[in-house]
Amino acid sequence: MESMVPSIVFTPGELADALGALRASTPLVQVLTNAVVTNFTANVLLAAGASPAMVDVPGEAGGFAAVASGMLVNLGTPHGEQRAAMAEAVAAANAAGTPWVLDPVAVGSLGIRTNFALKLRDASPTVIRGNASEIMVLAEAGSGGRGVEATDTVDSASAAATALALRSGAVVAVSGEADLITDGTRTVHVHGGSKMLTLVTGGGCALGAICAAFLSLTDDALLAAVAGHACYSAAAERAEAIASGPGSFAVAFLDALHTLTPAELASTAVLS
Amino acid sequence: MESMVPSIVFTPGELADALGALRASTPLVQVLTNAVVTNFTANVLLAAGASPAMVDVPGEAGGFAAVASGMLVNLGTPHGEQRAAMAEAVAAANAAGTPWVLDPVAVGSLGIRTNFALKLRDASPTVIRGNASEIMVLAEAGSGGRGVEATDTVDSASAAATALALRSGAVVAVSGEADLITDGTRTVHVHGGSKMLTLVTGGGCALGAICAAFLSLTDDALLAAVAGHACYSAAAERAEAIASGPGSFAVAFLDALHTLTPAELASTAVLS
Amino acid sequence: MESMVPSIVFTPGELADALGALRASTPLVQVLTNAVVTNFTANVLLAAGASPAMVDVPGEAGGFAAVASGMLVNLGTPHGEQRAAMAEAVAAANAAGTPWVLDPVAVGSLGIRTNFALKLRDASPTVIRGNASEIMVLAEAGSGGRGVEATDTVDSASAAATALALRSGAVVAVSGEADLITDGTRTVHVHGGSKMLTLVTGGGCALGAICAAFLSLTDDALLAAVAGHACYSAAAERAEAIASGPGSFAVAFLDALHTLTPAELASTAVLS
Repeated sequence: MESMVPSIVFTPGELADALGALRASTPLVQVLTNAVVTNFTANVLLAAGASPAMVDVPGEAGGFAAVASGMLVNLGTPHGEQRAAMAEAVAAANAAGTPWVLDPVAVGSLGIRTNFALKLRDASPTVIRGNASEIMVLAEAGSGGRGVEATDTVDSASAAATALALRSGAVVAVSGEADLITDGTRTVHVHGGSKMLTLVTGGGCALGAICAAFLSLTDDALLAAVAGHACYSAAAERAEAIASGPGSFAVAFLDALHTLTPAELASTAVLS
Repeated sequence: MESMVPSIVFTPGELADALGALRASTPLVQVLTNAVVTNFTANVLLAAGASPAMVDVPGEAGGFAAVASGMLVNLGTPHGEQRAAMAEAVAAANAAGTPWVLDPVAVGSLGIRTNFALKLRDASPTVIRGNASEIMVLAEAGSGGRGVEATDTVDSASAAATALALRSGAVVAVSGEADLITDGTRTVHVHGGSKMLTLVTGGGCALGAICAAFLSLTDDALLAAVAGHACYSAAAERAEAIASGPGSFAVAFLDALHTLTPAELASTAVLS
Repeated sequence: MESMVPSIVFTPGELADALGALRASTPLVQVLTNAVVTNFTANVLLAAGASPAMVDVPGEAGGFAAVASGMLVNLGTPHGEQRAAMAEAVAAANAAGTPWVLDPVAVGSLGIRTNFALKLRDASPTVIRGNASEIMVLAEAGSGGRGVEATDTVDSASAAATALALRSGAVVAVSGEADLITDGTRTVHVHGGSKMLTLVTGGGCALGAICAAFLSLTDDALLAAVAGHACYSAAAERAEAIASGPGSFAVAFLDALHTLTPAELASTAVLS
């Protein structure tokens, strides 16, 4: 089945235009995410040129989802009150046409988030982003990773990603050494990036927020997800070049996201 | 009405003395704040010379408020249990005479925090700090900003700030390109600072905590708020001069807050 | 009684072997900690070579504790849902033989955490880590510090630490200028480190997580705790040497934890 998926590549100019549009519009991104990464995620959005709003209180989350440019629902620490806010926000986003990203952190053996993620999978997310093990669980093709770590490779999750995209209607992004992004018929690999991102907590979680920012700028969710991943990879490469370890890498990554120009993105992104 | 407010300026020596007193006394600042910025806020307080204590559990928050030097109540992510702790802490702070700062993050269209903020406005805060849109909402003169962003200017909020100060009895501080701080009869502008602070999440929230630290050192809440804003601006200017982006700015800002001397504050602060 | 405790010292080779084993096995550390430091704690674990998982939702925390390599229970912001998760996790960890660390942040006058900490003290923690005032409260020999700060010295807590170790069966670690670590019969001091750690929120909290990582690598909990403290001190010294303040110190500390080799640890650790 995988061999029937045609490989297409967006042009450098399309990536540059997407980043230019983000900078011009400062999309308002609602973030319902885990307690570990909320600060880093907000700073990543600010650095990239978006405006974060961590509205995850029941009674407020739905109203905000109706006016946000895009939204992230990340299940890393899904406490009861936050799960209620997420359900409210997803319903309101769908009613209002607000695009949203689902990040099913560490699904598999952890029952509460896994059951909740399966429900959200079937609630029309625009993008589902995770590591290979998480994507396989949502595709009901695997049993999960080791905590928040993937124990499966991106390649091994390729068929599951395509099946999940076709089933859910979402673009599915699998993070790894090269990221695989598919809408079920078109598949793109984003190369580059840095392994250092795996040594900074929230490295993957904030990527979901960046994708939510790009979703408000184009009707092509695949392009939005690819642009988000390409920006992320470009900034990570620049950061790794000057970092002395994961502490200085995280600092340099925020700086690089902020200073990355559309032209630089176009000239460095490697897709296949 | 605004033209009737006399413009007064504290002397550089008064600002230097306030910072010297903070360093000498290490005030114990209780912080009930949003989940996004709690880490940055604690680090800002430590860098400036205060001792942060994030005590926001019902059953503990009130007892601690009675012994804290100052307190911050920030409504950025007002979950149910935290709102209960805030109500308990405010009552205890008022009973004990502990000065406290209210930061009404993103009030306007978000109902839960807005209703709660209006109640807290009428519960004798010592200082109210926010952006122009937030202050106008509390003065019942505006409808709020865009998420956590102001869509109104500091100048346009000047009359609202004065009215809010007279109504609430609090010193009101409006953050913006130049900060406006008023007790309803005296108004001070603090110039300088850095736009980079708007690219670091918690840039405004932590300023409220710094004001809470200064409140314990003087009976003049206007002087305390002005000193807090002046320290903040001085550190931000020093950080911007060496930063390559928002990541390195945040790091340099903490370093600058820590190394800023009273004499340097006195020589660089610009008030009007 | 204190003079009857023999002073023993682990060899540099034993410390190096412990760090080598950590790097080789990437222990999976479950962290139930306070909202202020969760991000820094995860980054410290990643930098040191462990894999953090902040699983603190009731219904998930127990199942995860049964498979984690080690676990940290830190009482800095003990909200109701998290306390339930902690109780569930501790029971499961004990049933499965998962070693765990108790960090009784700011016990003393704060009733909810103090009562809860006393219960956890009696629930067979493998290590109890705190500052002098916290350890004295758990030993029922003191009334607590000032917020999260110790108001007692490590030396003054020495007898309390030994008594607490004998009573609880845990290794007890008292953080301070020199750290004191005892299992009730053997006592080790870890020298060095940096006072800058007290200016970074979570400096102590993340140390508890590092100890949890080492606990999975040896049956000698005293060696694990000493190795964790020695790594921490070595990284802090390297960071202080290049830092300009607490902001750059925190960044350099993460870099140093990541790049510290077993041989460097062996050559720089000072025990007595």
